[in-house]
Formats: sequence, C-alpha cells, structure tokens
Amino acid sequence: MTVAVNTIVESLKQFLDGDQISTNETIRELHGQDESYHEACLPDIVVFPKTKEQVCNIMKLANTLVVPVVPFGRGSSLEGHVIPYKNGITIDFSLMDKILEIREEDLLVKVQPGVTRMQLNKELKKYGLFFSVDPGADASLGGMAATNASGTTAVRYGVMRDQVRDLEVVLADGRIINTGNLAAKSSSGYHLNGLFVGSEGTLGCFTELTLKVYGIPEFEIAARAVFPTVENAIAAVTSILQVGIPIARVELVDEESIRQVNHYSDMDYAEKPTLFIEFHGNEAGLIQDVAFTREIMEDNGCVEVQFETDNAARHKLWEARHNLAYAYTHGHPGKKQMVTDVCVAISDLADAVRFAREQLNSANLPGGILGHVGDGNFHALVMIDMKNVEEVKRADDFNESIVQFALDRNGTCTGEHGVGVGKQKYQAKEHGEAFHVMETIKIALDPKNILNPGKIVRMGE
Amino acid sequence: MTVAVNTIVESLKQFLDGDQISTNETIRELHGQDESYHEACLPDIVVFPKTKEQVCNIMKLANTLVVPVVPFGRGSSLEGHVIPYKNGITIDFSLMDKILEIREEDLLVKVQPGVTRMQLNKELKKYGLFFSVDPGADASLGGMAATNASGTTAVRYGVMRDQVRDLEVVLADGRIINTGNLAAKSSSGYHLNGLFVGSEGTLGCFTELTLKVYGIPEFEIAARAVFPTVENAIAAVTSILQVGIPIARVELVDEESIRQVNHYSDMDYAEKPTLFIEFHGNEAGLIQDVAFTREIMEDNGCVEVQFETDNAARHKLWEARHNLAYAYTHGHPGKKQMVTDVCVAISDLADAVRFAREQLNSANLPGGILGHVGDGNFHALVMIDMKNVEEVKRADDFNESIVQFALDRNGTCTGEHGVGVGKQKYQAKEHGEAFHVMETIKIALDPKNILNPGKIVRMGE
Repeated sequence: MTVAVNTIVESLKQFLDGDQISTNETIRELHGQDESYHEACLPDIVVFPKTKEQVCNIMKLANTLVVPVVPFGRGSSLEGHVIPYKNGITIDFSLMDKILEIREEDLLVKVQPGVTRMQLNKELKKYGLFFSVDPGADASLGGMAATNASGTTAVRYGVMRDQVRDLEVVLADGRIINTGNLAAKSSSGYHLNGLFVGSEGTLGCFTELTLKVYGIPEFEIAARAVFPTVENAIAAVTSILQVGIPIARVELVDEESIRQVNHYSDMDYAEKPTLFIEFHGNEAGLIQDVAFTREIMEDNGCVEVQFETDNAARHKLWEARHNLAYAYTHGHPGKKQMVTDVCVAISDLADAVRFAREQLNSANLPGGILGHVGDGNFHALVMIDMKNVEEVKRADDFNESIVQFALDRNGTCTGEHGVGVGKQKYQAKEHGEAFHVMETIKIALDPKNILNPGKIVRMGE
Repeated sequence: MTVAVNTIVESLKQFLDGDQISTNETIRELHGQDESYHEACLPDIVVFPKTKEQVCNIMKLANTLVVPVVPFGRGSSLEGHVIPYKNGITIDFSLMDKILEIREEDLLVKVQPGVTRMQLNKELKKYGLFFSVDPGADASLGGMAATNASGTTAVRYGVMRDQVRDLEVVLADGRIINTGNLAAKSSSGYHLNGLFVGSEGTLGCFTELTLKVYGIPEFEIAARAVFPTVENAIAAVTSILQVGIPIARVELVDEESIRQVNHYSDMDYAEKPTLFIEFHGNEAGLIQDVAFTREIMEDNGCVEVQFETDNAARHKLWEARHNLAYAYTHGHPGKKQMVTDVCVAISDLADAVRFAREQLNSANLPGGILGHVGDGNFHALVMIDMKNVEEVKRADDFNESIVQFALDRNGTCTGEHGVGVGKQKYQAKEHGEAFHVMETIKIALDPKNILNPGKIVRMGE
C-alpha cells in the first residue's frame, strides 16, 4: 500500500466518529486471523461503520486511494477469508447488527450483515419461525452469505444461497445495488443474488440481507444409527434419499470421532460409524418415514438405532455432534485444526471417504471424518502442530490428495467453507476455462482489485 | 449485418453438412417468431448443429464476422426471446436431443439442450423418477434453462435454476466452459450456474445440462377448492404456507377462467375463484396434511372442496388447468394472447390480483387471471386483436400498469417467462443501479454483442 495510514485515517474521520476507527494493535490482531490454521496478517486500520452510507464512503475512499478492503463478520471463516494479506482497511460489521424487519406472512426477514444466526433464531422463535442454515459456528449472516455457508440442514432446506432473496451491496466504487427483490421467483435480468452470494467480499460489501425463514416444524424426531462400516452408513443414506424420505439432517460421524465425542461430551456411544439423523414434518408422516427409514437402515446392516422425540434428548444428540470440532481441539492441546471440505456426487461418496481414511492413516495424522452425507460433503478434521514444518507439509499433502480425488470425479474442493486462501490454488484446476470467466467478472466489477484481493481469483498478485 | 449471407453460408459449410444449414424462407419464418404476440423478424440463416464442436465453430465464425446469433429450442418462449431482431444466424438445437446419462443414485441426468421436458419425463418414468419443472408447454430443457422457467411445481421443487447442477456453455468467442459440477453443493468460485441460467442466450449457448431429478412420490392427492372471492383463496394459501404444509402445486383460477375451462374442456366446475392444489408425500403424512388444509380452507370461506387420489381424476383436473391458455385462444378466434407475468411478495398478492382484475375490466379487454399463487406469481391472459392498434395500445397499457404495481412493491416484472423483448423496457426501472452491473457483465463476456442482441440488456442498439 502506497498511501500513508495517517492520511487514510484523516480521510475516514470526515464521515466516521473517532471510535469507529482503530489502529490499535490488539484490535488489528483480532482482525488479522480467522478460525483456520492460516497464517495471520494484520490490517492497517479497522473501521466499524453503522450505516450503509458510511460503508459507501469507505469504499469510495478506498477506491480513490487504491487501498485494499476486507469485510469482516465474526471471524469464524475456515479458509483465511478475512485475513488481509495486503493489509489496508478491514470493515468490521459488528455494529450493523439490527434485525430490520420480520415479514411473517412472506416468511422473510431483513437483517443487517452483523446479525448472527443465533441472534436471529432467538428473535424468530417468538414468531414460531426459524432460519435454517446451521454451519455450527455462530457466524454473522453477512459472512454466511459471503461464503455460501451451509451445514447440517442443507439436505432439506438448501444452502445459504437458497435463502437469499435480496442483498444490498456496496460495490468497489461505492455504488449501492440490490441484487434481488421480495418476489419468491424471478426471471428478470441476470441472477446477481447467486453471483454475490459466495463472492467472499471480492465483489462488494453486503449492507442488508433479505432472507427466507421457515415455520418451526410441527414435529421433529432425531435418531442415532450405528453401522459396522462407513460404507454401510452411506449406502443407507443413499437409499433413504432415493426413496424420497425428506430427512432434515443426516450426519456421518466416524469411529475415531465418536471416540472424541464420548471423551469430550461424556457420552458412551458405541464406537462405530454412526449416523445422526433428523426428520421434520407432521406426526403421522414422520411415524411412517421413521418406520421406512429403520427398515432401510437394517437392510444396510445397522446394528443399533435409537430415536429421540424428546426435545432435550434431541438437543443433547446434536450438541454432541456440534461439539466435535472443539472435542478434537480439546483432545490435542497446542495443535491447530485443518479441516478438509470436498463435496462429491453421492455415488462417489463411499469411495471418497474410504480414500480419505486411508490417506489419514498413512499420513499418520490424528483426526476423524464427519460429514453432511446427504449432500456428498464431508470433512476430515486433522490436528497439526503448526511449528512442525514436516507435519504441516504432511497435512497439506493429505488435504491436496483429498481435493484431487474429488476433482477427478467432477466434485468440488469446497462444499461449504469457501475458497479464501486455502482453496485458491485449486480454483483454476476445478473450474478450467470457467475460472477465466470468473476473473473477467472480477476485473469488470473491481478493476482496481481493492475488494479482498487474493481471495477466490488472483489478479497478478 | 454487413457480411453477405452467402459468405457466411460458405464458411459454415466448412464444418456443417449442407442439410444442417438453411436459408429457406419457410424454415426462416418458423424461426422468426415464438408463441408470443411480439412481431416476427426472420433470421438470415438457420443452422442445426449436432455436436458442441459445431456450436463452438459457429460461435467462432460469428464472433469473427460479428454476426448476431440466437439460440433456439422449441420456440415456445412468451416474450419474443428467440426472435432475431438483428437477423443473423439462428442456432436450432433440435438435433441435439439426446439424454446422455441417467445417474439414478445421484438423482441427476445429463441431457443435450434440445431434449424436451416431456421426452425426459417419459424416459425417467422407467426409473421411478421425474423432472419437476412444468411450465405448461413441452419446451426444450435448454430453453427452459435459458429463461429460468418454472410453472406449477415451483412452490415445492423450485424453479429451473434450482435444478441445474452444471451447464456446458459455448461462449461468444467459442470457448467452452462448465458452470458447475456433480456435487450437490459448492462454495468454490463464483456461482456461474446461477448467472447463466436465465441469461436468455445473451451470455452463451448451452450444449449440455446436468439436472436434478426426483423420485416419483409414494402418494399424490389433488384437490379443487372453490372460494367466494380471490382474496379468500389467497388468504387460504398464505395460511397453508405459513403452517408449513408442503404443497406441491397450488394454482389459482379466477371466475372468468373457470368459465373458459368449462366451455373448452367440457367440465361443469362452479364458476367461482378456484384453487387447484396437489400434495406429494407418504400416505399417512398426506392424510394429515389434507385434513389440516381442509380446515384452513374452510376457515377462509371455502364453499366446496373435492379431493382426488385417483390418477385419472388428478390428470383430468390438471389437464383442465393446463389447457387454459388454449381455451382462451380457442374462445377468441383471430386474436393473439398477451400474458402478464409479475411476481410479488405473498402479502401483496391479493392486492395485486384485485388491481389486475379492476384494470382488465376498465380496459374492457377479454381475459382472465390465473396464477402460481404459492410463489406470488400470477398471469393475466388477455386476448387482443393485433390489427386493432387502439386495442393493442390498451393491452400494452394494461400490462404496464400491472408491472408498475409490482415494481412499486419491490416485486418483479417477470416471475417465470423472462425478459425477451417484452420486458426489456422495465429492466432499468426494476434493477436500478444493478442493471448497470448486468450491462458490465454482458460487455465483459460478449464485447461484440453478438449473442441474442437486444434481449435483457441493450448495448447502444
């Protein structure tokens, strides 16, 4: 960056209060990392806008001075998305955390980008509604839209992109656009909603989101089903999907990971590959679905299945699943977590998971496999000592082998975490000629490359 | 166009057989119109490629010579999308009509763009599968992707864009890209699937589509429910959606349109606003859903409801609904049909339909209203005498008033038919500054403006 930090700060003061601008070391450090193992790098300045007009002014200034800008939600990204490797300005959206409108009849909400999913769900509960996307972390909704987050419920309700009805976006040059509207469907113009969701701050900053919400289901049943092998568990899921049983969640947790759960959450689950499943619907329908599901699971070698209709028991089950990442961290003090994230066609999933387990074993790395198997998306959680160069290399090679396996089968290097810096090197390989189209779009919309430079596409960096 | 037709034909012969190139007047006339009321205009040449390599060569040639190109499926578009107002080459995809792959386990199919939805569904039935999008016409799947078609089942299964897992696209300069992959979800790169679906041939020609399909539901029930007013019917639908009953279709047919149905399909339905509804699921669940739905409908003044579980009876019901457009045409010989297509938030739907009916009456035009009310999308079908300039003007004004009503409420000018030429004039108004972003993308990807020029965006034309 060629402009002096002081010059930028002085300019920012023309439209931000002093306490909305920080060059404090600690604040900068908090904005120099995310929850990934990727190396930290500090922004020069962190700003805390309260209105879209302020975001607009920040962008105009940054564009004029050619200063890099990184939008920042809660810092829960997993591929270094928010790490400002070119320094510059980080825009922290935590002060833009208002739920602006709840349109019950339309099953829509309008929120500012700093609202977190738990904050939204707490409010929605009063209306008998819920927001479906559940990535585990209490991420900001702006961040979730930026990475096209998903998680356990995508198999039923879809990913973040499916929930976005409209975005208000401040572009690189400060122009403000809306990418959608209030209509449930549209064939008007190009689909900018889809383009901006998942753009990881490289095409614009989101200042308002209009999102779909759902009525809380009349009835919910959860189940834990134990299988002799991962292959059996995946075969059961494939059959359940094929007969069209509308499962709301279906998570695979491998043997090693169940061991971590037992240890960390003080459970005594059978230490075998296990499916955590949930059904949403009406009572009569679910009873029939559950009976059919049990039959399919038994046909696929299921050795133990326990259904939970009770709210507390269901909650305990999912808490155990959600705590898994922390369980691994807790079980390996001093190590950092690398999480792979490929997604493949369901028919390739069993092979992909088997391959990942073999690679994990032969790399001699501690870790487990779990996955949103209804979507063909799974994670290997690997614990690594970042100070051990050779171990980091082994983990990187492991990650790469899994990605390569997925790309060879026309899958994707990232099902839900996004590209950030961690998956940047696979973009050209995964998208081929289409990657040049992405570069063309980036250049057209951010010609000075000031928006989260180096993420998704690289422009001569 | 500055290049002589003969020169282009000679160049085309280098990679196409003689019978794949036509300058025949009748063939050109067939490709100079669609099913809309928009004025015809003939292409200079019609070509019938059989492979993507041929499409690629056609585009390279057109790009070099700066000749306009219009991709053409079955010509069932409703806003003049395929009419080549700048003449040039029309690419007819009817010879690329192969179903390439059915991946049962993955619930995916790979097809060429000329495959029609009925052709696909006939084949899928053998596997117990179906393709969900049902726009009425037996459109080509390439065309349906190009316009982001939807129809009666979108409320449950989503629109065309939701079904597209991957597109093989030939760009303006002949480069071939894939916009997606086989994974059910991805956070990798920009979402080109979404951008190209609905691009109406202005960004590229589709040469292969990978689409989601579904298992045929275990159980289906259809119902016809009669209400005293349109408002009552819409209030019932809103309540059904809010409590989360997963209706598969819900169509509103107004009084005047029921009259046409009775006349054309020889039925004796009560001539009152009517909902045609369908449920898909398991038997026990549907019985509970149907009981709850009946209760909600009665609470909203429903005066008559008839459920049909029998396949033949269900089929007859939907046939009557689907024949409605033809019923109007049949009932008004010599007139052409103009169909409006706005989509609004559900909470604005009753007002929008009431406004449309008032405008229709005061414009003194024959026609009716029907709609995919679960999505907030409705059509006014208006019969017009194209030779009567004053009547055409009245119909245009009527269409415009309905669009303006929707745009004033942050809806869209087209829920499913697309922009073509008919909705081009509303693009800037609907999208505001975002329309410039669309223009920027068009210029970046088709700098010579050869792909379906004048549709969606206009570039100095």
